[in-house]
Amino acid sequence: MGFHFEVLKTDSKARRGRLTTPHGIVETPFFMPVGTQASVKGLRNEALEELGAEIILANTYHLYLRPGHELVRKLGGLHKFMSWNRAILTDSGGFQVFSLSELRKITDEGVRFRSHIDGSEHLLTPERASEIQLALGSDIAMVLDECIETPAPRDKTKSALKRTTQWARRARNHFLEQQDRNGDLKQWQFGIVQGATFADFRRESACQLLEINFPGYAVGGLAVGEPHEVTCEMTAEVTALLPENRPRYLMGVGKPEQIAEYVALGIDMMDCVLPTRAARHACLYTSQGRVLIKNARYAEDQNPIDPQCHCSVCRRYSRAYLRHLFAAGEFTAAILATHHNVHFYLDIMRQIREAIEFGNLAKFSSEMRAKYAAGPA
Amino acid sequence: MGFHFEVLKTDSKARRGRLTTPHGIVETPFFMPVGTQASVKGLRNEALEELGAEIILANTYHLYLRPGHELVRKLGGLHKFMSWNRAILTDSGGFQVFSLSELRKITDEGVRFRSHIDGSEHLLTPERASEIQLALGSDIAMVLDECIETPAPRDKTKSALKRTTQWARRARNHFLEQQDRNGDLKQWQFGIVQGATFADFRRESACQLLEINFPGYAVGGLAVGEPHEVTCEMTAEVTALLPENRPRYLMGVGKPEQIAEYVALGIDMMDCVLPTRAARHACLYTSQGRVLIKNARYAEDQNPIDPQCHCSVCRRYSRAYLRHLFAAGEFTAAILATHHNVHFYLDIMRQIREAIEFGNLAKFSSEMRAKYAAGPA
Repeated sequence: MGFHFEVLKTDSKARRGRLTTPHGIVETPFFMPVGTQASVKGLRNEALEELGAEIILANTYHLYLRPGHELVRKLGGLHKFMSWNRAILTDSGGFQVFSLSELRKITDEGVRFRSHIDGSEHLLTPERASEIQLALGSDIAMVLDECIETPAPRDKTKSALKRTTQWARRARNHFLEQQDRNGDLKQWQFGIVQGATFADFRRESACQLLEINFPGYAVGGLAVGEPHEVTCEMTAEVTALLPENRPRYLMGVGKPEQIAEYVALGIDMMDCVLPTRAARHACLYTSQGRVLIKNARYAEDQNPIDPQCHCSVCRRYSRAYLRHLFAAGEFTAAILATHHNVHFYLDIMRQIREAIEFGNLAKFSSEMRAKYAAGPA
Repeated sequence: MGFHFEVLKTDSKARRGRLTTPHGIVETPFFMPVGTQASVKGLRNEALEELGAEIILANTYHLYLRPGHELVRKLGGLHKFMSWNRAILTDSGGFQVFSLSELRKITDEGVRFRSHIDGSEHLLTPERASEIQLALGSDIAMVLDECIETPAPRDKTKSALKRTTQWARRARNHFLEQQDRNGDLKQWQFGIVQGATFADFRRESACQLLEINFPGYAVGGLAVGEPHEVTCEMTAEVTALLPENRPRYLMGVGKPEQIAEYVALGIDMMDCVLPTRAARHACLYTSQGRVLIKNARYAEDQNPIDPQCHCSVCRRYSRAYLRHLFAAGEFTAAILATHHNVHFYLDIMRQIREAIEFGNLAKFSSEMRAKYAAGPA
């Protein structure tokens, strides 16, 4: 089973599709739970399977530093190492180098940085980022891009964009050379459109990447502090230029009420730490909005987290019990909350796919916004 | 379904029995995973059920302070509160008051102490400890006893023993009054034999409790620092005096290699935080001894934690992956390790029950000691 992507149905700009990978079919649009260090925090793989996750994201930066990509390669690749037989996407490590590491120094060659774990010095180049991901054996690999702080001035954005394109070309060449040398690699490589909050740069970046020719395209450097309207505007600028027969990935989003909006702009793939991180901080997502479960109002509440939810946590445990576990600092609290929140996100995606099929995504999207407009309960 | 205990088979002093409770049958000898705050740390109830746990222990001291026994009563009792429909034993809170709380002051009335959570002042009396456990609605409740530091001098042991007997009588009277008033209470109350490391005091304590007449008896205040031989000697002194048709509970034990020894002394019930606590510290129990999984020797080890183990963790995940999760500080590590260790303990109990049925417990016990004599790997 190789790679294939097809759009099955559209609803205005939104697309209902199907991504075939060597590790199974992934229905689109989809959301990827984040398994930074080869584990979605608090969920066994069995739980992810029960939840219907068809693909997860793992972080190249973290796995390169620990346990090391050569170890993972030696043990048969990431799927075998972590015993996950469904699809995996790895990021390029670029974003983490820029946000986590110390003493980073960027040149045309690549980015030199110190590990946040032990201070050791490393050089990440476009070729190296590709090589690491080939060793990990993920189904989808991302090219190394230059991430910049926001808000970014035009000149800095322009030079980062230029470098991102150069790096993308080098990464693509390296990847194709490996493919020629080793035969059919079981990996797809995606480019990443940058350009900060400037529409002209976003278009320029997209056009340059289209020339390089990737099987899929990501929109990077968004949802990093700019207003949501700007995120949407930039995303729309890019998706308008991208080929209809290739998947589009908006990186690092989003809030529950925003997911359907991004899909409406033509996005097929998303990832975010929000459902898992919020769960560990006792913030639960429900069909009626956010629930801050540590609130005293839930102390005697025998209802499930979300009476409309069918997850195994809502079928069995009460708000009162969840509140107690969080108040008592029991780490089973995070297990149960994470399970529910990931179910909530994956269920949103199921509802979105159905909405597209029935041509009423706009209605679904506005209902979600209304439910989350009131703030947490 | 009320309460019933029967011994089905004996092997020297060891007993293979069956305890019937309102929340199901518990095969004896059994080991109780510890769910201090109404949760076995790191395991969903679904996991405990998969592991075959027929009974768990919860801590009265913790649940009294948080969320409070009246809240639990109001929400339908501990079984309903935590959604666990199998048997539960609650301790009296005595041991935790002595080991966790501050400023405790013991009088004949009871023990006055400050909460380790918020410093609030509380008075725990034998009647109160019984009342709290009735509110929790556990299947088996323990009487309040006076716990003392070890090694203890004879005079201090004698006065604590005297008070423990007085408290046991008051607790029993209170319990029986409640039973008369409310009809058939769905709870059994056990007495606790004290007497530190003095055989004569142990015998005296046992005889005094037998006069009060409990449906089951515990041996308390052991495995708190004294040599293992002394633990065994004291246990043997007590079990020799206890009636054969009532269950015997050795509190707070034990190490994997000691479990069968205690059973050989006539013990039917045990509990210990060791399997769950050790798991969180990356110490795994296996059929070949302890495995300290963070050790570098496991970095590339693709074997399961224990090749002879049939738990769902060993069926799927490698030592290399477990080691990585612990090294990376991923909390999924503790989930997987806890699952395995609890399986290991419950499986030891299954093997012990089978060994008694076949009359070869002594052989099983010496094999376990030999495997664990070598120290951790």
